[in-house]
Amino acid sequence: MPIVVQKFGGSSVANAERIKRVARRVVETKKAGNQVVVVVSAMGDSTDDLIDLANQINSNSKPKAREMDMLLATGEQVSIALLAMAIAQLGHEAISLTGPQAGVKTESVHCKARIVEINTERLEAELEAGKIVIVAGFQGATAYGDIATLGRGGSDTSAVALATALKAEVCEIFTDVDGVYTADPRVVPTARKLSRITYDEMLELASLGAQVLHPRSVELGKAYKVPIHVRSSFNHNDGTMVQEAEGDMEKELMVSGVTYDLNVVKVGLFDVPDRPGIARTLFSALAKAHVNVDMIIQSAMHNERNDISFTVGQNDQEVAVAVVQQVKEEIGAGGIIYDDKVAKVSIVGAGMISRPGVAAMMFEAISDENINIEMIATSEIKVSCVISAEDTKRAVRAIHNKFQLEDGTIANNEGFATA
Amino acid sequence: MPIVVQKFGGSSVANAERIKRVARRVVETKKAGNQVVVVVSAMGDSTDDLIDLANQINSNSKPKAREMDMLLATGEQVSIALLAMAIAQLGHEAISLTGPQAGVKTESVHCKARIVEINTERLEAELEAGKIVIVAGFQGATAYGDIATLGRGGSDTSAVALATALKAEVCEIFTDVDGVYTADPRVVPTARKLSRITYDEMLELASLGAQVLHPRSVELGKAYKVPIHVRSSFNHNDGTMVQEAEGDMEKELMVSGVTYDLNVVKVGLFDVPDRPGIARTLFSALAKAHVNVDMIIQSAMHNERNDISFTVGQNDQEVAVAVVQQVKEEIGAGGIIYDDKVAKVSIVGAGMISRPGVAAMMFEAISDENINIEMIATSEIKVSCVISAEDTKRAVRAIHNKFQLEDGTIANNEGFATA
Repeated sequence: MPIVVQKFGGSSVANAERIKRVARRVVETKKAGNQVVVVVSAMGDSTDDLIDLANQINSNSKPKAREMDMLLATGEQVSIALLAMAIAQLGHEAISLTGPQAGVKTESVHCKARIVEINTERLEAELEAGKIVIVAGFQGATAYGDIATLGRGGSDTSAVALATALKAEVCEIFTDVDGVYTADPRVVPTARKLSRITYDEMLELASLGAQVLHPRSVELGKAYKVPIHVRSSFNHNDGTMVQEAEGDMEKELMVSGVTYDLNVVKVGLFDVPDRPGIARTLFSALAKAHVNVDMIIQSAMHNERNDISFTVGQNDQEVAVAVVQQVKEEIGAGGIIYDDKVAKVSIVGAGMISRPGVAAMMFEAISDENINIEMIATSEIKVSCVISAEDTKRAVRAIHNKFQLEDGTIANNEGFATA
Repeated sequence: MPIVVQKFGGSSVANAERIKRVARRVVETKKAGNQVVVVVSAMGDSTDDLIDLANQINSNSKPKAREMDMLLATGEQVSIALLAMAIAQLGHEAISLTGPQAGVKTESVHCKARIVEINTERLEAELEAGKIVIVAGFQGATAYGDIATLGRGGSDTSAVALATALKAEVCEIFTDVDGVYTADPRVVPTARKLSRITYDEMLELASLGAQVLHPRSVELGKAYKVPIHVRSSFNHNDGTMVQEAEGDMEKELMVSGVTYDLNVVKVGLFDVPDRPGIARTLFSALAKAHVNVDMIIQSAMHNERNDISFTVGQNDQEVAVAVVQQVKEEIGAGGIIYDDKVAKVSIVGAGMISRPGVAAMMFEAISDENINIEMIATSEIKVSCVISAEDTKRAVRAIHNKFQLEDGTIANNEGFATA
């Protein structure tokens, strides 16, 4: 019997009524002839409530990560028990398992542990016994038996990891949107839902600000070739299948979607002396300060002096500027600039590898709108431009239009994107 | 270094401020030169909130006990994490452990599991490392690794069981009263706090309606001779020490206290034919219906027909009456009576074994008030009378006065009682 792993997020289990709805959906899947493993997150805002409690206690300092995990893991434990009860009410056998009970083994790190392995013995025994198995997402046990949570994107990662370990046919990620779109439908009304997308494209999109699926889970799906079906918990429509490129699919694709990210700060050093090791000095200092650097641009030299600029997320802005200020003195740069009124607009598509001129088309779309491009970075399947934040929506619409993403006619476009 | 186990109930950890207060108390005990293990219950009404959630899901039928345990165990898990954080804030090392992590092994029964054993390996390692160990009360793990809760009185039982397993010097049970009293101070203003009391006396008191300490924990304390100190979480006064009788103590005692219970229903069958097996038929039927029978009185026969009466708690009233009605037809009894406007008033004292006339003194006290005694039951260290509920307070005061419990002069009275 095929195994299906289904993941429901916090908003899908926010109250008793919604939990009952999830139960009906799970039972349908079981009745369709599948063995079902369900991964759930904590109910609605319950994790925030627990964090509030911790903050009331920890007025002087940060709580120990181990105790934070002990606290937060209760949120998912409540959800799994209630969902198991709701399924039993429908006359089906269900059993809830915490992450540790489900055999999810993690590194000995707290609040952001990675899964090391999953011992599927108990999971398989319960499935064999005909039960629907409900697993607490976001958590596992260290080798020492302590509870460790997986950090951001944890429940998606739990689901894909379980699907991998159980050789599931598919991992279904239920969400409040219908799937992955060629652009944010709130910005581009003509945006189209993509029926499929490759792991690499999804990874670029996820990193670029799409909220649907956490990059960690996509990486895991890619590594073990687990098909991930992103679909709506509100209807039975097919969503978007994230999977390996099939046959000629990759070649047919050009641009799958356009996305944007407003959580961007541009920081730059200008008049940097042109001698070896400068970039290393700067980026080592930033790494030491735990600043997560995204785009890096070093411009062509003139007068034997360079400009170096990079982008970071807004939460890193303060630290990044302080580090750059210090490095500026050290290396004798001319000055620094920074700008937090910027956005990053990107196109993603596996097909652009084999098609020259895709980047140029994007630049045309932007310049036709009289929008200035401040930075450009490219990868094999992505082109990103930093522009003024206030021009974001106009740029996204223009690009979406340029590549005719609304009707998928350009090069049989069958890719994806969202924001 | 001596080990002290301290137990704090739900009201002691109902919010962040109270958790901080408990943390200070725990740290004081540690600083006084003890290794400290703390057992806590779920915060305030959080268990009720979880039960409400479960009721919203389980509209058709009762939830599975296993899933109820999965749900309810989160309450204590939240408390232990927060208390560990609060102790860390005071600069002391603390670690929280769930029941399963603390090595508490239970029967494979849910919602009312008994503790089978405690594997103290991890507990001892953490204590050796100088840490204050916070353990979730009320829970353990079955042999299969499932979470099982201990049912009513579970946290008290966890605390005494841990004290036993760790050979602790004392198990301190913190509560919102100063200790065990000769009577309920709200009824008898002259009631006196007892400095010590035997396990057996405490058992009788606990069963008779005293709320301070659950009988299960007292039984366990008695079996393993763990001194239990019932004391206030609001002050540093000595409370009441529950322990083995020391030397002549038992002989000196006569009546330790007087207690009452309003949760009593009297049910009776009259004109029961006098032939063997009648009592068995009646009480087997009640047992099969899960009715918990307290006092049983079979009166002397007259005309070869007996009266049988017994008491049950009010929650069993309906089922008990239905069972008795059926048995009445079967055995051809004359009729049934029941009365829920009754109360049970009791005196408890290890000293009454060796002193004739104690029961008579109690009956005198009651009849001097013109109160009618409807049923009487005695054990070696207890006399209980069922009277009209409206006379309860008057009877308790009269008995307390008769035995001069307010000044402890009768027979160096050093016993106890409460309600």
